[in-house]
Amino acid sequence: MANVKAAIPKGTRDFGPVVMNRRNYIFDTIKKVFRKYGYQEIQTPTMENLDTLTGKYGEEGDQLIFKILNSGEYLSDFEIKNQVINDLNDPTFAAASASLNLISKKDKSILELKLGHEDGIKRLVAYRKLTQQISEKALRYDLTVPFARYVVMHQHEITSPFKRFQIQPVWRADRPQKGRYREFYQCDADVVGSDSLLNEAEFVCIYDEALSLLGLKDFTIKINNRKILSGIAELIGKPNQIVDLTVAIDKLDKIALEGVEKELLEKGFERKDLDILKPVILLSGTNEEKLNALKSILSNSMIGLKGIEEIDKVFSYLKNFDLSNAKIQLDLTLARGLNYYTGCIFEVKTNEAAMGSIGGGGRYDDLTGMFGKEGLTGVGISFGADRIYDVLEELNLFPTDVTESTKVVICVFGEAEEAFAIPILNQLRRADISAELFPYGTKMKKQMQYANDKNIPYVIVIGGDEMQSGLLSLKNMETGEQVKVNIEEIMDKISSEKPPH
Amino acid sequence: MANVKAAIPKGTRDFGPVVMNRRNYIFDTIKKVFRKYGYQEIQTPTMENLDTLTGKYGEEGDQLIFKILNSGEYLSDFEIKNQVINDLNDPTFAAASASLNLISKKDKSILELKLGHEDGIKRLVAYRKLTQQISEKALRYDLTVPFARYVVMHQHEITSPFKRFQIQPVWRADRPQKGRYREFYQCDADVVGSDSLLNEAEFVCIYDEALSLLGLKDFTIKINNRKILSGIAELIGKPNQIVDLTVAIDKLDKIALEGVEKELLEKGFERKDLDILKPVILLSGTNEEKLNALKSILSNSMIGLKGIEEIDKVFSYLKNFDLSNAKIQLDLTLARGLNYYTGCIFEVKTNEAAMGSIGGGGRYDDLTGMFGKEGLTGVGISFGADRIYDVLEELNLFPTDVTESTKVVICVFGEAEEAFAIPILNQLRRADISAELFPYGTKMKKQMQYANDKNIPYVIVIGGDEMQSGLLSLKNMETGEQVKVNIEEIMDKISSEKPPH
Repeated sequence: MANVKAAIPKGTRDFGPVVMNRRNYIFDTIKKVFRKYGYQEIQTPTMENLDTLTGKYGEEGDQLIFKILNSGEYLSDFEIKNQVINDLNDPTFAAASASLNLISKKDKSILELKLGHEDGIKRLVAYRKLTQQISEKALRYDLTVPFARYVVMHQHEITSPFKRFQIQPVWRADRPQKGRYREFYQCDADVVGSDSLLNEAEFVCIYDEALSLLGLKDFTIKINNRKILSGIAELIGKPNQIVDLTVAIDKLDKIALEGVEKELLEKGFERKDLDILKPVILLSGTNEEKLNALKSILSNSMIGLKGIEEIDKVFSYLKNFDLSNAKIQLDLTLARGLNYYTGCIFEVKTNEAAMGSIGGGGRYDDLTGMFGKEGLTGVGISFGADRIYDVLEELNLFPTDVTESTKVVICVFGEAEEAFAIPILNQLRRADISAELFPYGTKMKKQMQYANDKNIPYVIVIGGDEMQSGLLSLKNMETGEQVKVNIEEIMDKISSEKPPH
Repeated sequence: MANVKAAIPKGTRDFGPVVMNRRNYIFDTIKKVFRKYGYQEIQTPTMENLDTLTGKYGEEGDQLIFKILNSGEYLSDFEIKNQVINDLNDPTFAAASASLNLISKKDKSILELKLGHEDGIKRLVAYRKLTQQISEKALRYDLTVPFARYVVMHQHEITSPFKRFQIQPVWRADRPQKGRYREFYQCDADVVGSDSLLNEAEFVCIYDEALSLLGLKDFTIKINNRKILSGIAELIGKPNQIVDLTVAIDKLDKIALEGVEKELLEKGFERKDLDILKPVILLSGTNEEKLNALKSILSNSMIGLKGIEEIDKVFSYLKNFDLSNAKIQLDLTLARGLNYYTGCIFEVKTNEAAMGSIGGGGRYDDLTGMFGKEGLTGVGISFGADRIYDVLEELNLFPTDVTESTKVVICVFGEAEEAFAIPILNQLRRADISAELFPYGTKMKKQMQYANDKNIPYVIVIGGDEMQSGLLSLKNMETGEQVKVNIEEIMDKISSEKPPH
């Protein structure tokens, strides 16, 4: 067998022990809070049927779905594939396919540039048709669509309202870059089947509790409501351009007011529209002051007032919950990209580090319609685990014992000492202390190095003296302190500490 | 968007809350034991480069690897693919490829049957070449090859001996059937860089402790050593037929002695070989008696004696560890299929249920050679999580609180009661009690049904009376008992129980 270079696909990562422990610490903390609020874990398959996923993430999203080659069964339908392959060389086919609008404008223009008009389109169409023939499954692109599929598929088994959380990897064929991976974990909680705004309020509490447990002291949960944005679009007299409007004002942070105005003018909005919009999105003051101002601004918009009422209700719930560290901010420029949101939307930012949002979510009124079950309302949030990891690392918030694995390692000088050590090892483990015995035959220095590399806080050294006296050398690897004590004293010393993660 | 049927690919599974909790219980128990013995968790990517995986699992294994279609980049090398496609129609190419031995005998004969000789081969070769061009990545097929890849890739960062565990799904394009899935979890622990047989002994302890914690009372850990099997092959005078020999005697359980003899005769062994073999594999008595008998039988085989010595050493370690429930059995017919094993091998069977092996493993001397790092010894074991799940279910060994999620749900009659309930909810959660408030607006009967469906042990009911008196109705859902008590008494009652998983 030829040697193969040990490498992994670009955009993917190995997680070694230290990183893994820290990731587990984050996920375990969030899971604990999800469970405390009554959310239950589910898992869905890594592979979904391709038709479950396509068409749900827009034209660009569809292209970022990793498709799995059919396997085993390919012989049976080889005829069809052969047909596709033959199509490649048939110019009338290409022309016909192009008129069927099978490919997007963007793809068309890229292809025209690269390969010349007809040839390019012909090839793309044939490639897509081939893909359909040789791939029926794809990797999960997010957790939301599989969740919607799950809810419909298991609608007669689930308890309503159904409160579920799900922490699993997703895959996107994006160009990898710093902080953007082709495989990454999503961490979602959703409740479907309840329109109560208590759910929204509790999601704020979940963010507050989980992020506070992780050591964050200063973070803001921004809240807005899609209905308020619809009200603003009504106010301007362009209710059908709600998407253009939200896409533009969502960028206020990045491109400033001038940028937003420029984009809206390009989309067909007029100066007078901007004059109405500007004071609304620039509203300042406390949440209450903003809401009061909005009430009069949107007094003629039914949907706008409904949005205000919803936010009001969430705020009134939140007065009765005691938040630890979260600041709640009504942010009228918060829009969030996803088009399925219909009510309250959230986004979480830390104020302690320069970082994009570390969480977000919102209410949707018809997520399961795509699978034939209409009108099921729900609301959900997501934690950005990779970003939270980076924040905790930057702020030095990982507890030191998170990276601790083994509590104590017994180092021995020879075979007799090894035999002597086994009952001690048993005693430690019986007390649920994570303990190792370094097999004899390795130099003491290397054994010590092992303890050091693995961040093991205690080392017991056993040589001839220790075997005779029964007093073992216990070294504290952090302080360097070394004492000779009996096993009972060792047990006391080590057990009095917190258990390892 | 057209409606799509809510379905998942065959051979894959959704895990709902109850199953998920039970799976977590199994994995958490095993993880806890792995950590206690100094094993640290790692994770590797779901996708590996195709050349990392191919050639490692045999011809049949290669065909069961799920391949991922290249995505995004396909335009750039479309020319090459076009070439492949053209090859399809070139008869001289097919003839040439066939002579290059690109396809296996088995595939060849299937194709000849189905499509006629030349056409079939032509198509298969072209398909394979096309696959190579359009797929560079594949789904993880097991945890062992990615681990070997990891060790080589990170050899300068890891602490030696490197003790890692890994619990992740793997994918195989096998024909799905009862108990065989296309996506399933593997649960492995390995140590590389230590030849001490203490590691083998500790793996026996790990099996014993984890399975005992899971409630199994009667299970057997079978042990053998590949060197003993080599010794037997030497004894027969056919050391090069060790693979045929092990494959055959591994089936003793299934096809009985007659079957094994028949298979060996077909493979070129002779009657006199069987006369030597038979008494060895049928050796009975205690482990010690078997070892003693073997010592004289294999007295002329260096490698056989080495195997006996290794087993002897593992047994002598085990005398000093105290096992809870495991029975240790030297089983000379245990061979295990994987060819990379070179020393001790293990297999675990429960004696309480009819089930194949629930765990297995062994020592290998050159796992990382395939990635260019020779001579790194290691030993590892695996738990069969799906089978363990089935055994625990059959024996009714899942603790009842495993499927408990929320400890208490507060049910209210109206909006005022909901507001009244929030401080109580806060108090419960502050005490780390998993608690829910059912939003107002739902009939009490449905709220109770919710508690029942979710296996929630306590319900607090709040109506007008309760608000006035401050005495809340607490219902124990298991016994049906209902009492009126204040919140402090409720806290006492609920906190005194074990925390939920």
